[in-house]
Amino acid sequence: MYGLIGKMTAKEGQRDALIAILTEGSGSMPGCRSYIVAKDAKDPNGIWVTEVWDRKEDHAASLKLPSVQAAIGRGRPLIAGFDSYFETEPVGGTGLGG
Amino acid sequence: MYGLIGKMTAKEGQRDALIAILTEGSGSMPGCRSYIVAKDAKDPNGIWVTEVWDRKEDHAASLKLPSVQAAIGRGRPLIAGFDSYFETEPVGGTGLGG
Repeated sequence: MYGLIGKMTAKEGQRDALIAILTEGSGSMPGCRSYIVAKDAKDPNGIWVTEVWDRKEDHAASLKLPSVQAAIGRGRPLIAGFDSYFETEPVGGTGLGG
Repeated sequence: MYGLIGKMTAKEGQRDALIAILTEGSGSMPGCRSYIVAKDAKDPNGIWVTEVWDRKEDHAASLKLPSVQAAIGRGRPLIAGFDSYFETEPVGGTGLGG
């Protein structure tokens, strides 16, 4: 499996709007086992996205989906920055059913 | 929901053994919606654990489960350190079914 853990910062006052865009349509991406959007508990503008895909190629393909392209287009103006980004190899646990 | 994102470092050569302990029995913790153990793609001793719980209290209660206490006892000697630890508020996505 292929995983990503990333934190981004929304522009002031835009976290909820950005979260709405990020979570929209996250349930229909081929090869996606887990895609979780979370608020950082301390940083009022911080958003974490943790992802698990069957393969790295599935993640790459998802970025070409029209729905994802549209979401990126709408979300980008609300993003102040990307803070951290880690690639992982998920190996087990629970909640990997997609 | 209540979430955690944490990275730990296994002692040299102990990552696989530690992962086995971490993933064992992760499927039977009340209130746990997602518990994913992953290797860091670059750090050969790095392990990420990302968790989503119905409530913070569910996570706290899980630490008292005999199975989790036993796993902590067996896993602790294999851990070299804890690197990062973030509390989050998961708000949506896919793979939250537990």
